[in-house]
Amino acid sequence: MITLLTDFGLADYFVPAVKGVILSINPAVQILDLTHDVPAHDVRGGAFTLAACCWEFPPGTIHLAVVDPGVGSERRAILVEAGGHRFVGPDNGLFSFIYARHPEARVFHLNRSDFFRPTISPTFHGRDLFAPVAAHLSLGVAPSAMGDQIKDFICFDLPQPTRNSQQLIGHVLHIDRFGNCITNLTERDLPLDQARRSRALFCGRTLTQFGTHFAEAVNREALFAYPGSAGYWEVALWCASAAEALGARVGDQFQMTLEA
Amino acid sequence: MITLLTDFGLADYFVPAVKGVILSINPAVQILDLTHDVPAHDVRGGAFTLAACCWEFPPGTIHLAVVDPGVGSERRAILVEAGGHRFVGPDNGLFSFIYARHPEARVFHLNRSDFFRPTISPTFHGRDLFAPVAAHLSLGVAPSAMGDQIKDFICFDLPQPTRNSQQLIGHVLHIDRFGNCITNLTERDLPLDQARRSRALFCGRTLTQFGTHFAEAVNREALFAYPGSAGYWEVALWCASAAEALGARVGDQFQMTLEA
Amino acid sequence: MITLLTDFGLADYFVPAVKGVILSINPAVQILDLTHDVPAHDVRGGAFTLAACCWEFPPGTIHLAVVDPGVGSERRAILVEAGGHRFVGPDNGLFSFIYARHPEARVFHLNRSDFFRPTISPTFHGRDLFAPVAAHLSLGVAPSAMGDQIKDFICFDLPQPTRNSQQLIGHVLHIDRFGNCITNLTERDLPLDQARRSRALFCGRTLTQFGTHFAEAVNREALFAYPGSAGYWEVALWCASAAEALGARVGDQFQMTLEA
Repeated sequence: MITLLTDFGLADYFVPAVKGVILSINPAVQILDLTHDVPAHDVRGGAFTLAACCWEFPPGTIHLAVVDPGVGSERRAILVEAGGHRFVGPDNGLFSFIYARHPEARVFHLNRSDFFRPTISPTFHGRDLFAPVAAHLSLGVAPSAMGDQIKDFICFDLPQPTRNSQQLIGHVLHIDRFGNCITNLTERDLPLDQARRSRALFCGRTLTQFGTHFAEAVNREALFAYPGSAGYWEVALWCASAAEALGARVGDQFQMTLEA
Repeated sequence: MITLLTDFGLADYFVPAVKGVILSINPAVQILDLTHDVPAHDVRGGAFTLAACCWEFPPGTIHLAVVDPGVGSERRAILVEAGGHRFVGPDNGLFSFIYARHPEARVFHLNRSDFFRPTISPTFHGRDLFAPVAAHLSLGVAPSAMGDQIKDFICFDLPQPTRNSQQLIGHVLHIDRFGNCITNLTERDLPLDQARRSRALFCGRTLTQFGTHFAEAVNREALFAYPGSAGYWEVALWCASAAEALGARVGDQFQMTLEA
Repeated sequence: MITLLTDFGLADYFVPAVKGVILSINPAVQILDLTHDVPAHDVRGGAFTLAACCWEFPPGTIHLAVVDPGVGSERRAILVEAGGHRFVGPDNGLFSFIYARHPEARVFHLNRSDFFRPTISPTFHGRDLFAPVAAHLSLGVAPSAMGDQIKDFICFDLPQPTRNSQQLIGHVLHIDRFGNCITNLTERDLPLDQARRSRALFCGRTLTQFGTHFAEAVNREALFAYPGSAGYWEVALWCASAAEALGARVGDQFQMTLEA
């Protein structure tokens, strides 16, 4: 099984060209779209969305991910083995969350052109390089046959929560299209019942409503935080964009003052 | 075969997460998208779109439908057997057209958590509850093993056409994204040649052009009605939104004065 | 394998209805979307996108293409055999690039209604006529059993490059959604190193930057031309829409003054 995640959109010939190349090499493989609506060139957004769903797929799944503003430049093409899955795409940080979850990940620089198309468009490595590599992988070619293992792959600096006895500080990892602000705090960092006794400071506002879903919010005009389905605490407004109302951005601090 | 209909959109991790869960339980099942662009929380719109295409699929198809503004609240999760198809989703009226077409439908309350994921996010039953249920169904688990049959499921009050010798009154069921107003009148209610001899009152305007397609409209500025591909009479404007021009809304009356 | 290209969009019941009909006739066939976001009624745009990706698929692939403003009128339904692929759709020029690449193409008028659905909605031939034809084709029915071969099918007048010793004149074939202007000049018409020594006149502006990707552009404010991934020279602006900046349209001249 091969999944696809790109910023190509669905209106042009880009996505079907990638699929045609894969199916011409391995007609039996199953292709599934993760999304093609990553905002153009948003490598961090693509990295988040990939990590938020890739592990739902069965072991052995190959994830072809192309958010690649540097296509045609010197950035490397890589293959990653981690957690029983394989990932193919550019070495630009797109797999940062994969490395964070699986520090034992093995990364290969795709430098054997036998597995590429004979002619490579400098603007479309998705079709001419990554698609044939993923297809050959699905036919059983070993990663080590496709390139040399490297250690200096690119990984974003993912902010870690910091804490002391009274404070827990997280950051916004991602803003989804509803304007919900997804932090890097898990329920392990901040258990629900502790949150309910505490309060947060976020974008200059105090947040006091914590729960599992909005029905628990006494004040529906005010901010609400809940453990979201991606595994992290999220900040939201009832039927509105919290990000817009607060001017929140990726990286912003979410600062909890904890009660024991 | 499992089809999916949701209001999740295609940009986020929601849809691929659902697919990954299904394929992890039954890697051999075929998944097909109906649509993921139901307007957010529009249960009636989702109900119409589901009913307008689900019967084209082969008997035995499982339709996973999630337009679920009440996720996390007390609304029940259900499984419906009707017309040789199976439906899985929230008990909020989403299957109203299915019940109307198949009064013999059997509805089960999904109250056996053995078929759910061990941990259920209160904001994402699509992934954690409905997806595994649909996948287990596709593996042959009997609906009766998944829950108790219920009779008090939620069904919208679907307006029925009313008629006397001179009048036939229908209502707008749905407005599609072109602004065409789809009524609840079928060609059986109103045969084409009778319509051609009659006239309608709709949103305060008189409609006198009836046919099978726009080439028959003498006056392309005026309203035109035709038996649409969903099986109902539709009101449209040539290359424009009739709904916008008329301020039409779901539920509005479509009133025919009939000539014998 | 059957691919689909339409202007139906993804929000309504149209695309899944087509898929359901196909799968009810041939449950084993694999269906793949090319795109459903061809601008409404844009036959030329659909023709370009189809030709830009269909040949990536394996021989034997059936391409169902429906951009069909004339649905319900007298325009013919056709089946095309070309280059080892099959195409099904309206006879309105949608297959013009296919004919240009494969002058030996055989075209059949789909006039045997045995392969249609018993009742045909005059507004939805995609579901009621083209889908069942494609499905029966995938089951092995011979094209000649489905209709009579014709010679007078509709083909757009595709502009050919013209040249003399000093000049090469091409035209804009397509404008993609990034506003890049795709011409009908290939690298065979205009080799890269010759382009680098020459200059172009396009929409009243002089273009002097030619290369394989933007990193080569000295002046990022100015127009840049490169051999694009669809096989043609494209004109673009760095992170902006060249088409909008220039007011460029399909058919506009791209005029090279050549240095030997």
